[in-house]
This record gives sequence, structure tokens and C-alpha cells, in this order.
Amino acid sequence: MNSFISRCNTMASCDSGSLSEEFAVPSHVEEVRSVMAAFAEQHGAAGRMVVLITSGGTKVPLESRTVRFLDNFSSGRRGASSAEYFLAHGYAVIFLHRHRSLYPYTRLYTGINLLDCLTLDTVHGSGLVTVDQRKLPNITEVLKRYQEVKSAGLLLPVEFSTLSEYLHLLKAAAQALSSIGSKAMFYLAAAVSDFYIPASEMPEHKIQSSNGPLQISMKMVPKILKPLVKDWAPKAFVTSFKLETDPSILLERARCALDTYKHQAVVANVLDTRHGYVVVVTKDSQKELVLTDEEAQREVEIEEKIVKNLSHAHTQFINQKM
Amino acid sequence: MNSFISRCNTMASCDSGSLSEEFAVPSHVEEVRSVMAAFAEQHGAAGRMVVLITSGGTKVPLESRTVRFLDNFSSGRRGASSAEYFLAHGYAVIFLHRHRSLYPYTRLYTGINLLDCLTLDTVHGSGLVTVDQRKLPNITEVLKRYQEVKSAGLLLPVEFSTLSEYLHLLKAAAQALSSIGSKAMFYLAAAVSDFYIPASEMPEHKIQSSNGPLQISMKMVPKILKPLVKDWAPKAFVTSFKLETDPSILLERARCALDTYKHQAVVANVLDTRHGYVVVVTKDSQKELVLTDEEAQREVEIEEKIVKNLSHAHTQFINQKM
Repeated sequence: MNSFISRCNTMASCDSGSLSEEFAVPSHVEEVRSVMAAFAEQHGAAGRMVVLITSGGTKVPLESRTVRFLDNFSSGRRGASSAEYFLAHGYAVIFLHRHRSLYPYTRLYTGINLLDCLTLDTVHGSGLVTVDQRKLPNITEVLKRYQEVKSAGLLLPVEFSTLSEYLHLLKAAAQALSSIGSKAMFYLAAAVSDFYIPASEMPEHKIQSSNGPLQISMKMVPKILKPLVKDWAPKAFVTSFKLETDPSILLERARCALDTYKHQAVVANVLDTRHGYVVVVTKDSQKELVLTDEEAQREVEIEEKIVKNLSHAHTQFINQKM
Repeated sequence: MNSFISRCNTMASCDSGSLSEEFAVPSHVEEVRSVMAAFAEQHGAAGRMVVLITSGGTKVPLESRTVRFLDNFSSGRRGASSAEYFLAHGYAVIFLHRHRSLYPYTRLYTGINLLDCLTLDTVHGSGLVTVDQRKLPNITEVLKRYQEVKSAGLLLPVEFSTLSEYLHLLKAAAQALSSIGSKAMFYLAAAVSDFYIPASEMPEHKIQSSNGPLQISMKMVPKILKPLVKDWAPKAFVTSFKLETDPSILLERARCALDTYKHQAVVANVLDTRHGYVVVVTKDSQKELVLTDEEAQREVEIEEKIVKNLSHAHTQFINQKM
């Protein structure tokens, strides 16, 4: 176990000071913070639980006038579908997502060209453009649900693109949710870069290929989970995700994260099987969630099970705190 | 001028052999090649010119089971809007674009949430879903034009994601277009990575952040423009793009590319001003294209001017060859 412990200990964490020094503060962060705080207070007062979902990958610029960047694979599917299930469980949702990643409800029609689904009424000359419902399956049900959620103000979208934006907006969200204490859940499904180039070491202009092969030296991103759990949202229920490609190290790394950050749950998953199998790891439990073939056939989503499991655990967590 | 010449000469090019060795061949490349060849022959026989547009950025994986990748900034806006203007000039278009980058016509509604634009007829219970046309400006005109282009079979979309896919599909396109000789234009607007990691040097699994800071060593991508112009499409009209962030080196680098590859035109542009100003550089001319304030107000697009300039040059080029 020695190597296991030492590996856990090598992770650098960050405090509020270093965050602003190393990562430029987005200009709109204060404005977004107060919108999120008002959202949390309103729904908290109405007796609702509020979940902050992070979703999609982060962009790490290699040049300050950015042409090239390092990116993480993530369509945002898990975050977007989870948002729908949290809404179905009565939560209000702050959806902190990568610009252009999948969005709740709309995600069901991603990859479909809008113009292929529309019909122009040329016969009656009404000028009406209607939807060909064979091209957008279940559109009436989905649209109805989307409009209900929207008019009830239950979904607050916030966008990020770069790693810096992600880090500062997550911190702002944690502060904004602090007023509702244990009623807040963090569901950190975004694929966040582990590496970055400090602004001070970044070339201003596009790297010239004529200068020969490229050597990139990247620093490790400080682990934001530590200050999040310890300082920014100490009363909240925090769920992180652990994605690996090598199944043999998955659970060890999930336990390692729990031991290090002392939060409530890790959803552990392997890249190739992540849509059908995850393990929810807590301090004293380990629950496998699996889609059966029959469920996969019916297009049940694993996120339905993850959210059911976690919202149950969250309710227990709240009751214990009372 | 010495440093200029030596810089031009340091660029490595690739031949057909090295392309397959270093970059995995996508499984569908033969199938796509024959579809493109049939498209070119059909439209060539109908007396049409055919343009191959490349559009969007390329992804360069850092791991073989890819979680992380290097990406190039590009929404694909220039390629997608240029496709529309080439179609308006009577061209048939092969649109070789990055998966999920902007698409002709549909691009005009990018960033709009589909579900925000639809209305459900709940009053009459018809179940009809219609488009709120205030949310999708000019939708009837755009839809009409899209449907005309589609039913005439004038637009052939081909997708890529990775650098390997891009390189092999571009080569296949060049071979597919060779039957129509000078009637083919290549309009290489994609933002292609200059660097990559050879498959043999790539780690299989996700790079562990616990191993400390990340050192990435990337090789230069061979310049595909050389074999494209020299071997694969020697009779075609070839236009490349040069994007820089530093205006002071722009024209030098554009001339350098023309001198090295001996193709027909370079569209030179600077990142910050690329939507309002470009220079079309040819062997013996240099034409500035600028949007006036009044044109910008009317939402004229610089691509309209680029395409007008190049389709004129292409016609002259064809006539000279006859």
C-alpha cells in the first residue's frame, strides 16, 4: 500500500490565492455568482434541493492569442442527461457546461441537421414552417417537458470554455450555493484537464511550425476538489467522477480520491463501458450500477440509475445533518 | 532574404508511402473515394466546376484510447459560408469538414437552441409543431435554398475528426477529382495541425496526472500541399489559407508557401481581423479584399468576395489550359 498512499499524496491542491494568480479571472464571474446565488436562495426557500452539474471538457490554450489548445474528450452527454433526471427528481439544476456541449432535452436531437427536419408549406402559401415529426422522434413530449422546466425556472445554464473559466465559475458556484448548506449537491461530471500552461510561460503568437518539432511542457492543474470540499462548500454533498481507460486501477483511484478529499461519493467508470456500467463509491459502500441488455434495448440510460442512487444518498445526508 | 529562404526550405513534405505509415488509414476511405469520384464525374459531365472545400480544425490524439487531444481553433465558419457562395456561383461542392463544425445554411442558426424555436399546438390539439419564425430569421428563404441544393445533389458532405482522417480523405478527394482536371478547385480552409504524435510513440492509456508534470513531444506534420499539387491533383486550381496572429509576417509567409508549393493562390488572413480583411496572393498579384463599414452593417460576408475573386481566377485558369 505504500505506493498507493504516496501517489495519493503527490496531488497538489490549490487555495483561493493561487487560483487567481495562475488562472485569469473571467470578467463576468461576479455577475454569474449573483445570478447563481439568487437561484439557490429562491429554490432553497421553496424547499427544493439544488444540484450544480458540471459537464463537458475544458480547453487549455497553448498560445495567449489562442489558435491551438489541448482538449479533453467529452460530448457532455452524461451531464446533460443527468440534468434531466435530477429535474425529474425535483431538483433545481445549475448546469455549468462547456460551450456547445450537449444540453438537456436538446441533446436528444444532436447530430440531426435542423433544416432536414423542417417542411415549408408551399401549397397553401401560408408560409408556415412545420416540423417533420418522423425526423425528431418524441418531439411533442420532449418539447412539453422542456417548456415546463423552462417556465418553472428550474434550469440555470452557465457556460465555460477554458480551464480558467471552469475553475473560477465552479468556485463562484460553491460560494453561491453555500446559503443552502446540505441541500446543495455538486455533481462534477465535467472532464477537466489535469495539465495546463501558466500564462507567464505561454507564447503570445501562434507557434511557428518552421521552428521544428514542438516541445510542450505542462504543469499539473491544482486539485480544486480540496478547497471545494474543505473551504468553499463544506456542508454540501459532493460527487466527483473518475474516468479511466485501464479498469485495473479504477477502484483504487476512486478510493484514493475519497481518502484525499473526504467528499461524499465518487462515480467510477471506464471509457469503453461508461454508458452501461459504473460504480458509486462512498466511504463505506461500493455500489455497482449496471444496465441489463433488456434495459439497453429499451434505451434506459445509466444516468437514471446514478441520479436515483445519489439523490437517495443526498436525502439521507440531509437528514443526518438535521 | 537568406533566413526567409532557409525557413521555406525546412518544411518537410510527405509522399504517399509515409502517409500510410505514420497515419492510420480510416476504414471507410475507399468507399468515400468512390462516392466522391462519382460526384465529380457526374457534375463534370454536366459542365459544372467542382470545388473541394476543407473546413474546421483537426484533432490530434495524445493517447491511443483517446481521452486527451490537441485541437486547432476553428468553428468552420469560413468553409461553411464559402460553400454557399460557391454553390451560388454554379459549383458543385464536396464539403470535407470536421464533425460538428459549421455546416452550410444550417450555420446561420448555430447557437440557437432548437427547442426554444418550436411551438406546440396545444389549443387545437392538432399535435402540430411549428417554427417560431421570429427566432429563426429568414428561415423560409434559407430552407428553400437548402432544399434546392439538396434535391439537385450539388453538395456532398464528408466528415473527419482526426488529423489522420483529414489527410487520407484529402488525398482520396484529390484522386477522385483528377478525372475533371482543371475544372476542380481545392479550397483548403481547414485549420490543420502542424504537429502530431506518431502512433508508435503514443501511450495506450490515459496519462496519469499523479506522474507529475506533462512533457509532450510532437513531430511536425508533413506538408500535404506538396504531393497534392505535384502528384495527386497536378491539373487542379489549388487555394490554401494562411492564418497568422502576427500581421508583420503574414505576407512573407504567404509568398513563401506559394514559392514552395507552386500552387495557384494563398488567402492570407490575421486571426483578429479575418472576418473583414484578407489578401489573395497569387504568383504575380496581391489583391486586398476588405469589407467596408457599410457592408459589415448589411452583414455582407468577406467569403462572398473571396469566392467571387477565386471563381473568376479559376475560370481564367481553365481557359488558359484549353
